[in-house]
Amino acid sequence: MIYRANIICTPTPERFKILEHGYVVVNDDGRIQGVYESLPDSFVSTPVTDFGDCLLIPAFCDMHVHAPQYRNLGLALDEELLPWLQKYTFPEEMKFSDIRYAERIYRRFVHELWMQGTMRSAVFATIHPQATDLLAALFEEAGMSAYVGLVAMNRNCPDQLTNTAEDACTYYQDAFQRQTDLVKPILTPRFIPACTPDMLSRIGQLAASSGMPVQSHLSENLSEVEWVQSLEVEASCYGDAYNRYGLFGQTPTLMAHCCYTDGEELRLLRDNGVFVVHCPTSNSNLASGMAPIRHFLNEGVKVALGTDVSAGHYLSMLRVIQYAIQISKLHYAQSRGKVKYLSLSEAFYLATKSGGAFFGKVGSFEPGYMFDALVVDDSYLNYDNYSLEHRIERYIYLGDDRDIRHRFCNGKELKEICYE
Amino acid sequence: MIYRANIICTPTPERFKILEHGYVVVNDDGRIQGVYESLPDSFVSTPVTDFGDCLLIPAFCDMHVHAPQYRNLGLALDEELLPWLQKYTFPEEMKFSDIRYAERIYRRFVHELWMQGTMRSAVFATIHPQATDLLAALFEEAGMSAYVGLVAMNRNCPDQLTNTAEDACTYYQDAFQRQTDLVKPILTPRFIPACTPDMLSRIGQLAASSGMPVQSHLSENLSEVEWVQSLEVEASCYGDAYNRYGLFGQTPTLMAHCCYTDGEELRLLRDNGVFVVHCPTSNSNLASGMAPIRHFLNEGVKVALGTDVSAGHYLSMLRVIQYAIQISKLHYAQSRGKVKYLSLSEAFYLATKSGGAFFGKVGSFEPGYMFDALVVDDSYLNYDNYSLEHRIERYIYLGDDRDIRHRFCNGKELKEICYE
Repeated sequence: MIYRANIICTPTPERFKILEHGYVVVNDDGRIQGVYESLPDSFVSTPVTDFGDCLLIPAFCDMHVHAPQYRNLGLALDEELLPWLQKYTFPEEMKFSDIRYAERIYRRFVHELWMQGTMRSAVFATIHPQATDLLAALFEEAGMSAYVGLVAMNRNCPDQLTNTAEDACTYYQDAFQRQTDLVKPILTPRFIPACTPDMLSRIGQLAASSGMPVQSHLSENLSEVEWVQSLEVEASCYGDAYNRYGLFGQTPTLMAHCCYTDGEELRLLRDNGVFVVHCPTSNSNLASGMAPIRHFLNEGVKVALGTDVSAGHYLSMLRVIQYAIQISKLHYAQSRGKVKYLSLSEAFYLATKSGGAFFGKVGSFEPGYMFDALVVDDSYLNYDNYSLEHRIERYIYLGDDRDIRHRFCNGKELKEICYE
Repeated sequence: MIYRANIICTPTPERFKILEHGYVVVNDDGRIQGVYESLPDSFVSTPVTDFGDCLLIPAFCDMHVHAPQYRNLGLALDEELLPWLQKYTFPEEMKFSDIRYAERIYRRFVHELWMQGTMRSAVFATIHPQATDLLAALFEEAGMSAYVGLVAMNRNCPDQLTNTAEDACTYYQDAFQRQTDLVKPILTPRFIPACTPDMLSRIGQLAASSGMPVQSHLSENLSEVEWVQSLEVEASCYGDAYNRYGLFGQTPTLMAHCCYTDGEELRLLRDNGVFVVHCPTSNSNLASGMAPIRHFLNEGVKVALGTDVSAGHYLSMLRVIQYAIQISKLHYAQSRGKVKYLSLSEAFYLATKSGGAFFGKVGSFEPGYMFDALVVDDSYLNYDNYSLEHRIERYIYLGDDRDIRHRFCNGKELKEICYE
């Protein structure tokens, strides 16, 4: 397939690479063969799908999101973390023992990810194997790629929301056998305080033996950091606690938040190649704090972005890009200009190529990359002959799901699947 | 007229007042006669407009916005304040010497305010009298209420963007003669560094003699605060500089930003009844800082909200409400919980009744208040029998212009006016 449009991506974070009315050639396996200013002679007989003056951008990667919290989007954000969990989040997650309820909410969740142009995600499900399998099947049906994590948790949470290390590990091993190109399981201990040392050890052993990836939460707020220090007295820091269980980069690892990461924990993240998943909307909504992302990038830590729905209040990665920049600008203001803020192209890179790296060659238009793309019609924003540089800026700050005309994942166009 | 819907407003900031399927009776003069759970017998013969299960909320008040920067929405937010002004903002404002250009942009601006449900605003125009009159006329034509300010500036800015105290005051006096119920002029010295002491004195004298209101910028960022201190050595603080010119509450006054206001300046704000217009999207985008709004409210200072387009990147007050809460939660996190954050109802109050007070009895559904209202169809968000408390929360966090079915200002329904 050959597509023609205004092609915009971030092969490097420093700037947008922009090709006016360029061509992307996609092989049968969904990988990009090449990107061209004018079409080489060898392709003259191949039909071209022309998207006119639309923008063609990489689809987004949401690297931290809780699917079972979807019904609670926008709710209870006046509450502090603990009542938010106990009155709203845990009771909602309990409902996913009911597979019919799970189907109703998960269908809407996957539909909205599609709508917002998020073609890949790393998802927390619940402790419920049947509902988690269903969520994986819905991604597969939609043609979207995801790491879907059954949550493992066996302490400091309601009885109805606990499983055992045995339950969780059996599930992970089964799901690993059934994984597809698009949808794979991911080891998902909720966070240190919700998992006994035995559970964490067993999951760490499974990571080592299977190579399965890991996702969890790290240093989200100060009370949590102090709590973990009291639980894991031999660990040098919160991150080291995961590390001692083999859950910190021994296999590909996503750690959400890291608002209070520095020193030894930062070095461990970097040396172990762990991804920080920055969730600025969530960190603002839950009054967690401001993760020092510019500092992480300067130190060579890998960073991706996540909505963290429903602590994050919106499923669009455009919003997360905006907040990531704004939070880094508040750091800049508070440091009186000492720490430079994220640029738009850097934040876009985090939401596409940087997060996409967790899936392989994803998130950019370069030879060998999977063709994950959004066709954006920004004509209502482009009423005054804006340059393409300005059009991508305006789309990121002003655009929404209405503007996306076509969505591609792994080279295939994904049509809307009705959610009910 | 009688309207039936789920009526939601904030007579006091502490909580939403919610009336399921209630009635609002509006007099011929556009004022609310009463709000009822069930319709009194005296109205049985009056026809009722039934909005079914929709939400009926007060329309929004945007108390700080730069109309001529509308074309630059979403642009150049990687730039710091000075290059942002010099490379983008000032050159754009210069274009408003061309009345045809002004009409094209101002029509779109007024149309989008309408679209976003902002029925009242306090607007900065440019130095150009003809374009400023046109903007006022467009508000009048649309039926929307606004304070429209010709900007006065005569130093520290490009030559093409200066006027004289004489120019500005003549314009203000003329416009004052022509003011209507809906659209009125407002004295708009850009800010202290852009106006000579003579200009500020003359505008202050005009305020005193005419009673016209005032709007300007205050303590937006630290360099600016230091600059003003060096320009106005006899003033005890930036706010006192305005005060000495009679531009600080001697007539109704809006001061945008106040990120670095405390001590004497805060006392002056409170004692003089000056409104702080909090613009959290702008303060984040321009790396200005985080205005301590909870502190202002605790101290009895009046607070309204503004988009500050185009330093703010979006014209919707829903977004500003979200950011106001989030910024106050970041204060909360940084104070380790000492300063409580804004609740949703408080932030909604700031965007409706608190800002509305600048226009008189506006921004709530109470007897004697002008009927400024939005009819919101949130049915796509209400797929699981949410309570009305949760529906208003979800609409504020998740809704957008698509959801607004009807818009009322001053008792009249305002239909869409095409912008081209």
